Amino acid sequence: MRVGFVGLGAMGAPMAINLVKAGHTVCGFDVRAGATDALVAAGGTAASSVAEAARDAELLWLMVVSGEQAESVLFDSGAAAVLPKGAIVGLGCTQAPAHAARTAERLALMGLHTLDAPVSGGTKGANAGALTIMCAGEEGVLQRARPVLDAMGQRVFDCGRAPGMGSTAKMINQLLCGVHIAAAAEAMHLAERAGVSTTTMHEIISVSAGNSWMWGDRGPRMMLDNPAVTSAVDIFVKDLGIVLGEARALKAGLPLSAAAMQMFLAASGLGHGAADDSQVIRAYRALNGAGAKR
Amino acid sequence: MRVGFVGLGAMGAPMAINLVKAGHTVCGFDVRAGATDALVAAGGTAASSVAEAARDAELLWLMVVSGEQAESVLFDSGAAAVLPKGAIVGLGCTQAPAHAARTAERLALMGLHTLDAPVSGGTKGANAGALTIMCAGEEGVLQRARPVLDAMGQRVFDCGRAPGMGSTAKMINQLLCGVHIAAAAEAMHLAERAGVSTTTMHEIISVSAGNSWMWGDRGPRMMLDNPAVTSAVDIFVKDLGIVLGEARALKAGLPLSAAAMQMFLAASGLGHGAADDSQVIRAYRALNGAGAKR
Repeated sequence: MRVGFVGLGAMGAPMAINLVKAGHTVCGFDVRAGATDALVAAGGTAASSVAEAARDAELLWLMVVSGEQAESVLFDSGAAAVLPKGAIVGLGCTQAPAHAARTAERLALMGLHTLDAPVSGGTKGANAGALTIMCAGEEGVLQRARPVLDAMGQRVFDCGRAPGMGSTAKMINQLLCGVHIAAAAEAMHLAERAGVSTTTMHEIISVSAGNSWMWGDRGPRMMLDNPAVTSAVDIFVKDLGIVLGEARALKAGLPLSAAAMQMFLAASGLGHGAADDSQVIRAYRALNGAGAKR
Repeated sequence: MRVGFVGLGAMGAPMAINLVKAGHTVCGFDVRAGATDALVAAGGTAASSVAEAARDAELLWLMVVSGEQAESVLFDSGAAAVLPKGAIVGLGCTQAPAHAARTAERLALMGLHTLDAPVSGGTKGANAGALTIMCAGEEGVLQRARPVLDAMGQRVFDCGRAPGMGSTAKMINQLLCGVHIAAAAEAMHLAERAGVSTTTMHEIISVSAGNSWMWGDRGPRMMLDNPAVTSAVDIFVKDLGIVLGEARALKAGLPLSAAAMQMFLAASGLGHGAADDSQVIRAYRALNGAGAKR
């Protein structure tokens, strides 16, 4: 397929390159200079504007950081206006479900199809072409986009017809991620306070019913004072903000998500917003005192 | 070793039988008639009283349901009084760390050693001799008990010298278990309310970063209206009660555990205390309305 690709960051660049490898014709754009180099080296082409990437594309994939940026690319920078009628816009960014639905409505009025298709799996999954992609859109659109989706992802889930359902699925994953990171911090903090070795605790939980993917991934970094940043505290302020905003619109109280959000907010308020999200444990130490009984 | 074993329930019976298989001499007692049958068939002996099981034992293992029952067996039913000086009491039950520490103090005054050694792994782990055992006690005591521990458990963790540290480790596992079950219910409930298929959602999370052991185990039962009871809602009212009680004693606020506790309490208050703990999702439906947008 002829694919326009906007947003060649840590996720987007390897995804676009995997499309080239699978035989697709990819024209990429990114606002940062040099961001297209790897794509060009792999056999893609570089566009000098969003509109140039979109012109002639059968599918335009947006791998930008938010729904607001996706809207700006589509409607302010003119991508939607130059896309051929009947083209598909793939919204790969993490955004509020209502936002994805609104963008899809605007695109429909212009004769364009939307695939609400946020991804998970991180840069590791992006590089390996092993992402999980949560799709919502018309069945025929999903089918047409399938070769592109399969080149980027290992697991493509059909979450329903209405754009927004893919983002809802991603949001529910983020709910669990956020709550599990905060729960891991709460457990580690209690171990510190009670005087149990956090190293032993990490080994025990890793083979017990209290285990989670986040415990395995964030746990070791939680035991460090200043770990490298894989994903920042403020990302979960944003993602749990989406969860609680959508739940508010649905009039649904979510006690655990709300409690987790307070801990990420507190960590950010303490000045740790740019720290690795495992450092939400600092909010617990601020709240209760660190290792008082250790 | 000569082992006295009190409490031959769903966990205790296979544990005691595994001790016999490993070559230990086991004398078992249970208040329920017939509970010793399987042990006797396996080559153990049946005691007609707690004191008879304890007499001559080098190690007395208590697999009763609470710290209160363990105290009653030891001090009211006379087990501690008849145990040989220097014998080890293994406290295998789940109890508050402070309770285990208090029992150990009383035993020490009588010249007896304590191994605070709660287990996890359920009846499956008990049958397979594959339990995780979280031990705290004197190093020499742990070493003497090692052949018994290895016959019942696959992983034996040394949590420290002070009795109570094993129970603390187990309590921290229960904290995560309780929060993860409630978080799974919160996520499933949000999927129901937002109109995403819970079956698809379960598949997605099972391969994503939001996954947890509890999501895999309780998730499928959470999607049923009336699943078989593997572990009841009221068990987590008890276990999170231990967590919050100990945290109160430590003067540590635990926002997620507190929120999870409210949901288990609400489920129990709604009359579902004996239902499978996956049914904590009913408290969410009562709170927000079930599938209002489905």
